[in-house]
Amino acid sequence: MNFQKFSLKLVNRSYKPLGTTIKIGDTSIGEGVFSIIAGPCAVESPEQIDLIASHVKKLNLRFLRGGAFKPRTSPYAFHGLEEQGLIWLRESANKYGLITVSEAVDLESLSLVSEYSDIIQIGSRNMYNSTLLKAAGSLRKPVLLKRGMSATINEWLMAAESIMVNGNESIFLCERGIRTFETTTRNTFDISAIPVIKKLSHLPIIADPSHSFGSGYGVSSISMGAMAAGADGLLIEIHPNPEAALSDGKQSLSLEEFTILVNRLHALKEPLNLRF
Amino acid sequence: MNFQKFSLKLVNRSYKPLGTTIKIGDTSIGEGVFSIIAGPCAVESPEQIDLIASHVKKLNLRFLRGGAFKPRTSPYAFHGLEEQGLIWLRESANKYGLITVSEAVDLESLSLVSEYSDIIQIGSRNMYNSTLLKAAGSLRKPVLLKRGMSATINEWLMAAESIMVNGNESIFLCERGIRTFETTTRNTFDISAIPVIKKLSHLPIIADPSHSFGSGYGVSSISMGAMAAGADGLLIEIHPNPEAALSDGKQSLSLEEFTILVNRLHALKEPLNLRF
Amino acid sequence: MNFQKFSLKLVNRSYKPLGTTIKIGDTSIGEGVFSIIAGPCAVESPEQIDLIASHVKKLNLRFLRGGAFKPRTSPYAFHGLEEQGLIWLRESANKYGLITVSEAVDLESLSLVSEYSDIIQIGSRNMYNSTLLKAAGSLRKPVLLKRGMSATINEWLMAAESIMVNGNESIFLCERGIRTFETTTRNTFDISAIPVIKKLSHLPIIADPSHSFGSGYGVSSISMGAMAAGADGLLIEIHPNPEAALSDGKQSLSLEEFTILVNRLHALKEPLNLRF
Amino acid sequence: MNFQKFSLKLVNRSYKPLGTTIKIGDTSIGEGVFSIIAGPCAVESPEQIDLIASHVKKLNLRFLRGGAFKPRTSPYAFHGLEEQGLIWLRESANKYGLITVSEAVDLESLSLVSEYSDIIQIGSRNMYNSTLLKAAGSLRKPVLLKRGMSATINEWLMAAESIMVNGNESIFLCERGIRTFETTTRNTFDISAIPVIKKLSHLPIIADPSHSFGSGYGVSSISMGAMAAGADGLLIEIHPNPEAALSDGKQSLSLEEFTILVNRLHALKEPLNLRF
Repeated sequence: MNFQKFSLKLVNRSYKPLGTTIKIGDTSIGEGVFSIIAGPCAVESPEQIDLIASHVKKLNLRFLRGGAFKPRTSPYAFHGLEEQGLIWLRESANKYGLITVSEAVDLESLSLVSEYSDIIQIGSRNMYNSTLLKAAGSLRKPVLLKRGMSATINEWLMAAESIMVNGNESIFLCERGIRTFETTTRNTFDISAIPVIKKLSHLPIIADPSHSFGSGYGVSSISMGAMAAGADGLLIEIHPNPEAALSDGKQSLSLEEFTILVNRLHALKEPLNLRF
Repeated sequence: MNFQKFSLKLVNRSYKPLGTTIKIGDTSIGEGVFSIIAGPCAVESPEQIDLIASHVKKLNLRFLRGGAFKPRTSPYAFHGLEEQGLIWLRESANKYGLITVSEAVDLESLSLVSEYSDIIQIGSRNMYNSTLLKAAGSLRKPVLLKRGMSATINEWLMAAESIMVNGNESIFLCERGIRTFETTTRNTFDISAIPVIKKLSHLPIIADPSHSFGSGYGVSSISMGAMAAGADGLLIEIHPNPEAALSDGKQSLSLEEFTILVNRLHALKEPLNLRF
Repeated sequence: MNFQKFSLKLVNRSYKPLGTTIKIGDTSIGEGVFSIIAGPCAVESPEQIDLIASHVKKLNLRFLRGGAFKPRTSPYAFHGLEEQGLIWLRESANKYGLITVSEAVDLESLSLVSEYSDIIQIGSRNMYNSTLLKAAGSLRKPVLLKRGMSATINEWLMAAESIMVNGNESIFLCERGIRTFETTTRNTFDISAIPVIKKLSHLPIIADPSHSFGSGYGVSSISMGAMAAGADGLLIEIHPNPEAALSDGKQSLSLEEFTILVNRLHALKEPLNLRF
Repeated sequence: MNFQKFSLKLVNRSYKPLGTTIKIGDTSIGEGVFSIIAGPCAVESPEQIDLIASHVKKLNLRFLRGGAFKPRTSPYAFHGLEEQGLIWLRESANKYGLITVSEAVDLESLSLVSEYSDIIQIGSRNMYNSTLLKAAGSLRKPVLLKRGMSATINEWLMAAESIMVNGNESIFLCERGIRTFETTTRNTFDISAIPVIKKLSHLPIIADPSHSFGSGYGVSSISMGAMAAGADGLLIEIHPNPEAALSDGKQSLSLEEFTILVNRLHALKEPLNLRF
């Protein structure tokens, strides 16, 4: 497979020199806006997601994430509440006027997620899933495309190209850490991907400090760093009770920790010339 | 995602201490047999696959591979002839009495591949595809499960567990190189995976020197090494005219080069106490 | 070599819970100060280093770096001006009241560097060089210890421990990127090392965006990110004419680019509660 | 540092198209010979090294390794018996007519090792140590040059070039595993380095299965694989009582295990057209 033969076209910066801005309701993602997307790894109950949604609203944030289909390596792990999770996510989002992000893992879940959620996430494990990318390309909803855990930046952009060539140009990328030899963190957050993507492509790029760091204690540091380095937003896992979370509790911030982080991020807005 | 919480069960060596032997027609894969699977990256025409199949037969080998669904990163690359490719593969295999291996990339292709092919390959890009793994688990055909390009051995075995727990115990693994910093080869063939898998699991493991090395000149060396290290077989790309191949030509062996390699492998059979 | 058997002692956060502050002349490195160290990869001529030193002074910065001993992989590459380079570096530093940083690569150069320079750098290629670490431990000058290009954080701290156990506690660490599969950047800047080191150790940590990114265009982004993530400073390559530099020109900032960056960094001081 | 600018010269295959053969006493390393070098990680006592040397002799092998200077990451680890270790190694080698290999870690130990040992090893941690490489280049003794733990093949050859350009052409390389994300083995043995080196260079290449695998159970498999893949020899750690070894016991073979491995390797000589 000779990638060199196949040059990137639609995702190139030259295709949209001013950058892509994705309009969603009364807000947007990209160029000059810093979008903080927060929520639990998995929707667990109507109470859990309502509590988180109200907290997100209280902080004047606009995006609520929540997984209903969890791609897990182990067949014995919790794989999400599926349609029920999507319904609860939607209800809480409607109640507080939030925009939702939820992940699709195959054609069946893509159909459901696109029915209930405002933004469709394609996760690391599916970045090479041509069938899913193609199907996402025919949707009229924005797609959050995570980098594969060992995907080169070129391959990642190729995956975005696969969506765009099928008609959907509302794509934003998410750096979530790559696999390296270092073991003190779950993955190595590749902050350099931010300036590289900004140079090569017009697509917005956000950062996922939770999955990359893998422990709550580093999430704030990576979030601040990504914002200052030029990211267009963050995808952060929060949970009212991280230790009791059904998945990824170790890396989730509590609501209190998240409030502190949002305040720290606010302080960077002016010097970085960004708005939330 | 705390993998540690979810221990491997069915794939453990202790589940089948003597190792898995997969019966296919009058031959088998595993324990004491060295299975050489050869063929083109992609089925291109009835003449191409017939020529290759006749060569495989002439060398007294039993397995013919040929891709009909090619998972490619670029949307502009050749993605295979789909059902037509499967039909031609089947016809050539029947003519020469060969067992076929072909890759499925999603539920739709899985249905077609399992209709036409004796063995279903799940490739690197789909090793984390839970939906596909689950569906392969309900089939009654052997599955060749490649390691993801940056999957740990534990995750790879988790993927096999996902197939087994759904009812299909005819699985064999294929090491195809992992992603590292070294750039003289496309991937780094992880020969250590052979003794590690033999210790941890009862599943047979074969080697794919073509995709790991990425150039024809190293295929023979890796093949010999893998056989001596204890692999149960090889998956090798061959093509009558590598330079004209529609995909992966650079790493394919010509039929003449392949003949020489098979003769070299034959010479190792006796000292290694293996039969073809 | 079982690293687990040998726990870290002197470098642990618990040894100095408030963190290490390294006093150098009338300034310091660590806790609340953000130290920008700039200069050429290699001292090339008295005019070159004087021009750079005057620019550093003009920006009210305090630290001047300049290599006189260049550890290069190729025996045919430029290896530095040795003692002559150190003399010119010292003269320029004295003229403008700057503190110098220069690298030692073996015992002989360590002796010379410690004679002329205020701070001694031990580079990536020598992070595992026990002989050099031990000798640096008996000096009374601060040591800037870079992370090896594929060193784990634990090994890096072990190297610092090797210096401390020999009597020198004035050490600060420098993250300079690790080796991964990604090829759009020379190395992958491991921003996560910043919160990890802050948690595990009391030693200050600075960032080298120049060597990690490997091209000038990403240096500003990584610098901003590292500062916001909690780094105690930066080590940046600058050159009056990057294209004519005898080494590392590709990644050096011009003096104009550097001025712009310093102004951007200034704007982050207040929200991050740091002083230069 | 632009490696591309500095092409390899003396180490290129074209410099010695027939390959390098290193004459040592009445034997040689390279082209058609398979050299098994065995011994303890560290010389511990005269009894220990004598016992091992007599076993090596009994198996009709010619090379005895034994470390006297151990480059260890931790300052608290056992760092070798230094000159005393070299003396005991020499005495045992003389008694049984064996050729010795021992590691030098700096100029001082290089001077001692070259006084006592027939072959000088430069280890992974020192592959980038230009000072040591240069000094080894002026010796008249063969040098065993290990690959750095994250060195590219090009950098490794550059290190060999640094020795050759200083006058010493008796160099053989040793692949000892590279650092990757996989954690079931200490390093990932890069078997592909064997055909790559054979294509690019005239220098012999041997394999170190002990340091790469990191546990005794995989050493036999990697050894067999490396031999069949075209390696010119092996460097294997053995110990009369692995569990009591002062260093690297976990990966050492017992004398009985080593005997079994040598017999298995013997069986491959004829089909591979090699002599011991």
